[in-house]
Amino acid sequence: MAVQMIVLNGGSSSGKSGIARCLQAILPEPWLTLGVDSMIEAMPVALRSSGAGIEFAADGGITVGPEFMALDAAWIAGVAAMARAGARVIVDEVFLGGAASQERWLKALGGLDVVWVGVRCEGAVAAARETARGDRVAGMAMSQAEVVHQGVRYDLEVDTAKAEALECAHVIARFLAGGRR
Amino acid sequence: MAVQMIVLNGGSSSGKSGIARCLQAILPEPWLTLGVDSMIEAMPVALRSSGAGIEFAADGGITVGPEFMALDAAWIAGVAAMARAGARVIVDEVFLGGAASQERWLKALGGLDVVWVGVRCEGAVAAARETARGDRVAGMAMSQAEVVHQGVRYDLEVDTAKAEALECAHVIARFLAGGRR
Amino acid sequence: MAVQMIVLNGGSSSGKSGIARCLQAILPEPWLTLGVDSMIEAMPVALRSSGAGIEFAADGGITVGPEFMALDAAWIAGVAAMARAGARVIVDEVFLGGAASQERWLKALGGLDVVWVGVRCEGAVAAARETARGDRVAGMAMSQAEVVHQGVRYDLEVDTAKAEALECAHVIARFLAGGRR
Amino acid sequence: MAVQMIVLNGGSSSGKSGIARCLQAILPEPWLTLGVDSMIEAMPVALRSSGAGIEFAADGGITVGPEFMALDAAWIAGVAAMARAGARVIVDEVFLGGAASQERWLKALGGLDVVWVGVRCEGAVAAARETARGDRVAGMAMSQAEVVHQGVRYDLEVDTAKAEALECAHVIARFLAGGRR
Repeated sequence: MAVQMIVLNGGSSSGKSGIARCLQAILPEPWLTLGVDSMIEAMPVALRSSGAGIEFAADGGITVGPEFMALDAAWIAGVAAMARAGARVIVDEVFLGGAASQERWLKALGGLDVVWVGVRCEGAVAAARETARGDRVAGMAMSQAEVVHQGVRYDLEVDTAKAEALECAHVIARFLAGGRR
Repeated sequence: MAVQMIVLNGGSSSGKSGIARCLQAILPEPWLTLGVDSMIEAMPVALRSSGAGIEFAADGGITVGPEFMALDAAWIAGVAAMARAGARVIVDEVFLGGAASQERWLKALGGLDVVWVGVRCEGAVAAARETARGDRVAGMAMSQAEVVHQGVRYDLEVDTAKAEALECAHVIARFLAGGRR
Repeated sequence: MAVQMIVLNGGSSSGKSGIARCLQAILPEPWLTLGVDSMIEAMPVALRSSGAGIEFAADGGITVGPEFMALDAAWIAGVAAMARAGARVIVDEVFLGGAASQERWLKALGGLDVVWVGVRCEGAVAAARETARGDRVAGMAMSQAEVVHQGVRYDLEVDTAKAEALECAHVIARFLAGGRR
Repeated sequence: MAVQMIVLNGGSSSGKSGIARCLQAILPEPWLTLGVDSMIEAMPVALRSSGAGIEFAADGGITVGPEFMALDAAWIAGVAAMARAGARVIVDEVFLGGAASQERWLKALGGLDVVWVGVRCEGAVAAARETARGDRVAGMAMSQAEVVHQGVRYDLEVDTAKAEALECAHVIARFLAGGRR
């Protein structure tokens, strides 16, 4: 059975989006990329900075409220439905809750063939890239670097501090081509 | 029964996205906005300029290929699933196929309470706004202004050449508040 | 003598940038557009939210500090030099200090043939457009709508609440073609 | 005498902008960053894809026409004037003409204390990053990687294939602090 979904999980500025774009460029079939950034962009502006939605503190911390969680659950259900309807989907995610976040996705993805990829990047390197980007709240990279992987189980892991995004994408593509289990 | 989805259909530069943002700002509950732009952004870069995906001709014409249509069908199914899972969704769409495009959505949205809104804007005005934006292929606004509405049935229509986006949003919000049938 | 610079002054969300893009599209010669947004983008990220640089308060108010003023003076001198070196330049500005801001520009532009254009837009309309854009701090449009014009002298004025950006651009283009004095 | 300008020269996707943002973050004084991207953004949309302006070919090649060259000369004069007026300026440039491009800048910068930095990045690595970005014409990175450095003289060189942007910025910052010659 062909893989229907690739979930990339990693902290802010760990390089997930770059890997996703490379996967889209090198995989033979068309893949959609959706992620937490797409969802935040779909949300009302007001929810992006409120206790009910998602708050980005000055120190890089993130808090999500009840309305965010409700929309997030519906979002996950919708992304799963896209895959069931035949779209190949790369999910670009930040499991702020570690294993609990993965559990939310696992429940929604029943029956789909999913490859789980951990996107590692040492906190100091991710923080340096956060500075180079200049478009993220400083501190997010460092504070998320480890916590998003706690208790999460992966089919494979890549490390963007040690390899370019394109190389990481090739590792994932070979894993897919080789049959996953 | 509360409205679960608002579909805004109109040509390029007719002002749909502005209305969507205003609706998100004035409606009491949080609404997600998703649309053809979100989907194109989720697609591989290569599909955005190929015969298999979507091509934007120099004169503003658009051609979509078989791979685009397949992803689009899965996309629609996913957006419908988000609404069924409890998210309120504003769909920001361009029915290039007129009634046939609406039919594709209608089939996917069975059982959902949807308000269909025609976003009108005279071709000349939309073309002028296209020039003022500077980020769209010139000619799209004029060529889509009428064709996207052919045979499409609406619950209500607004005209951004005659009213600001926020006023149009208030018209839609009052329609929702008044009970739609 | 041909006009070398067009200064568009108006509050946030009054439609200056749209007029500038339309002018670039309809004027026979190539014009550069530079403005306060270009300058803020050129600044360090840290200066964009500090008392020494520029602060955007939650209510739409703006405060600029000494380092911002120093960079701004050098910026104005540079833009004037571009025009003296032969580039036609559209300046897209917000005279937060009204007449005093114009005075800063006037001193730097000695010897250049400049057309000063007031871009009016009733506060309520600008505020509605600010909501439709969704990418500006709410309140800026209303708080700047009148104050930026206080004591400023113009060669002509346009009103984007009454005419599309492209029409306003045509009014300005005809003024240029007609000879300005 | 304190350094007034830092010129970063390198091919597309070599990492100049990331270094510039890091420099702005770590240098004690505020620095403006301006570059070829700022200038292209200031140009009329029509000039960005015409023989008179700048053309990006499908293979990553770039051609610039007479109107582009005229605006570019005025742009350089203006950036020099900003530095003379007291702004510290980081220039983020692509010397498509190698030594000849540097010569154009040298003539305009007479009397200013400038640090010239070569930003190296092996073509294959830059091309991989171009794929990961997804927002540049494919092929530019590879075709520019070597040619932009031909005959150009530098005060120091950094290599983003071997060090993170932030590390490169620290190398440059130490050079500035140490006195430049």
